[in-house]
Amino acid sequence: MKAIAVERGADKPVVIEKPRPEPDAGEALVRTLRVGVDGTDHEVIAGGHGGFPEGEDHLVLGHEAVGVVVDPNGTELEEGDVVVPTVRRPPASGTNEYFEKNQPDMAPDGMYAERGIVGAHGFMSEYFTSPSDYLVRIPRSQADLGFLIEPISITEKAREHAYASRSAFDWNPSSALVLGNGSLGLLTLAMLRADDKGYENLYCLGRRDRPDPTIDIIERLGATYVDSRETPVEEVPNAHEGMDFIYEATGFPKHAIQSVQALAPNGVAALLGVPSDWKFEVDAGAFHREMVLHNKALVGSVNSHVRHFEAATVTFTKLPRWFLRELVTGVHPLSEFEAAFEDDDTTIKTAIEFGTV
Amino acid sequence: MKAIAVERGADKPVVIEKPRPEPDAGEALVRTLRVGVDGTDHEVIAGGHGGFPEGEDHLVLGHEAVGVVVDPNGTELEEGDVVVPTVRRPPASGTNEYFEKNQPDMAPDGMYAERGIVGAHGFMSEYFTSPSDYLVRIPRSQADLGFLIEPISITEKAREHAYASRSAFDWNPSSALVLGNGSLGLLTLAMLRADDKGYENLYCLGRRDRPDPTIDIIERLGATYVDSRETPVEEVPNAHEGMDFIYEATGFPKHAIQSVQALAPNGVAALLGVPSDWKFEVDAGAFHREMVLHNKALVGSVNSHVRHFEAATVTFTKLPRWFLRELVTGVHPLSEFEAAFEDDDTTIKTAIEFGTV
Repeated sequence: MKAIAVERGADKPVVIEKPRPEPDAGEALVRTLRVGVDGTDHEVIAGGHGGFPEGEDHLVLGHEAVGVVVDPNGTELEEGDVVVPTVRRPPASGTNEYFEKNQPDMAPDGMYAERGIVGAHGFMSEYFTSPSDYLVRIPRSQADLGFLIEPISITEKAREHAYASRSAFDWNPSSALVLGNGSLGLLTLAMLRADDKGYENLYCLGRRDRPDPTIDIIERLGATYVDSRETPVEEVPNAHEGMDFIYEATGFPKHAIQSVQALAPNGVAALLGVPSDWKFEVDAGAFHREMVLHNKALVGSVNSHVRHFEAATVTFTKLPRWFLRELVTGVHPLSEFEAAFEDDDTTIKTAIEFGTV
Repeated sequence: MKAIAVERGADKPVVIEKPRPEPDAGEALVRTLRVGVDGTDHEVIAGGHGGFPEGEDHLVLGHEAVGVVVDPNGTELEEGDVVVPTVRRPPASGTNEYFEKNQPDMAPDGMYAERGIVGAHGFMSEYFTSPSDYLVRIPRSQADLGFLIEPISITEKAREHAYASRSAFDWNPSSALVLGNGSLGLLTLAMLRADDKGYENLYCLGRRDRPDPTIDIIERLGATYVDSRETPVEEVPNAHEGMDFIYEATGFPKHAIQSVQALAPNGVAALLGVPSDWKFEVDAGAFHREMVLHNKALVGSVNSHVRHFEAATVTFTKLPRWFLRELVTGVHPLSEFEAAFEDDDTTIKTAIEFGTV
């Protein structure tokens, strides 16, 4: 079968031939439909993140997949089930308490592999196998855009943890700011528009000039575009209002620090980005004081697991169809896979199609 | 009646004469037993924190009080009830949503007065009045040390918010570090020793040479003393272990930032200190990355309200008698009140006695 992989020493993905995998006991065989591309894939290709499986000189890419079960292999799945695989798997050293407790998203470095990212092949191949416990059934109607379930699940988890941090009191957020207008930022903005909290005012921060398709989406979602070149994050309360909830999807450490000043009293910021070291001067006294006197919280969040994928399938149904059409700017056949890795100001979210239902 | 107040322009407290207050409708009259002294009182006296009631040139000090009801005045209280008053009250501008929701501890600046601190007289007087809703009944057996209920309530709230932030997953903390060996730090350490989480390893950070009475208490509680001059906060994981829970009671902004590196994966740090502005260089990239990749949380917490005082009366019963004896280094009669404001390395917690049950 064909697979898209990055090989040791290379800086771009290629199509390779691999044997079709055979499911082990407890695993199902899945025929791949589509696999999304995101920033993590670009970092893996550039060599800045992730790593090859033990003893191998290539890594099959892809962690945002949707497929159809072709061999349930005695698991509780059925042939024809449309499924989305989770990403974290036990490391080469074997399972551990995080997997046993069904919360591998809480495992620290070294206690997991991530398919398509670190230590395990991904899903950009015509077939893949997976333990059925890590395959989440989704409605057949979501098969076309099922590659969005994984990124939605990332926000489900971050939102769950952020809201949990505000659960000790009666919190009624009305304003939220998403930092970053990439595909994850826009997905999150649409999720917050549909959120049970009923946010009155939504904002999304970017650094793009008009006309721009992401600004169009932000405004069509009824949100306000905040240009970070005109309004730095810490100026947001003066320019607009203090934010009850902030979702950081830029990986820019100044945003992590400044979000505390941008929060309204009793607000929470969820941090999602993974920056490199960067030292700069911070008014840590003001940061600390503001955290305390206004009961603020910062919550870091990475990865997601089965229950977040399950929540994502419900959230998916609440996202407007026009939004999903505008968000996905390209679904490319395997023969033209390079196009899915191109990135310009008209590209928002791309996927590679390996097959159809 | 006599009261201890700080007058405009003065830098030390004095005894003044005031009329005994008359309870309004809904208020009870309380005869004061004892009032504790803490760092906030010293800041108020020094003029660095708080403020006088509108139109007045003095502020009666004291926010850690215990008293006995002498006139219930038609409220649900009874004569002879031993009570502890909460601290936050509606501001001069009147009540607001935070008081109406019974969570004034979540009110932002300007939406509250604090008795003995900002905008309202405190409890260092022979009698005080208070709406009965803000008087928490405590067991008569706790009357002697009832002035500790308020500081215990501060940690009850911070702990509640910190634990809430970890409630979205199965969190089993085994290690905790208290930053600061003042009276609040030591009270918190004793509370964590009695915590339902069953912490295996407790640590308390200070900067004192042995022999020192706080180090003796730390070690008698079965905790490890960490000298911050030898082991800076960010070195704690190398010297000891990563901490599942950190409680910051130093007001030192380097600790707020460094606590993220000192946390174990999935840990939470509660911030309690209120520092002034202080700019310095921070590796904000490492801070941000560590928050995200290890699902860490920072939670600021200030003040407390009725339910935290109620929890404190239960927690109080779990603290060892020897600990309380060692913690309270002086209870001084009103005639020698100055001694309660002296602070040296043998002083841990002091109180002023206005009367006995």
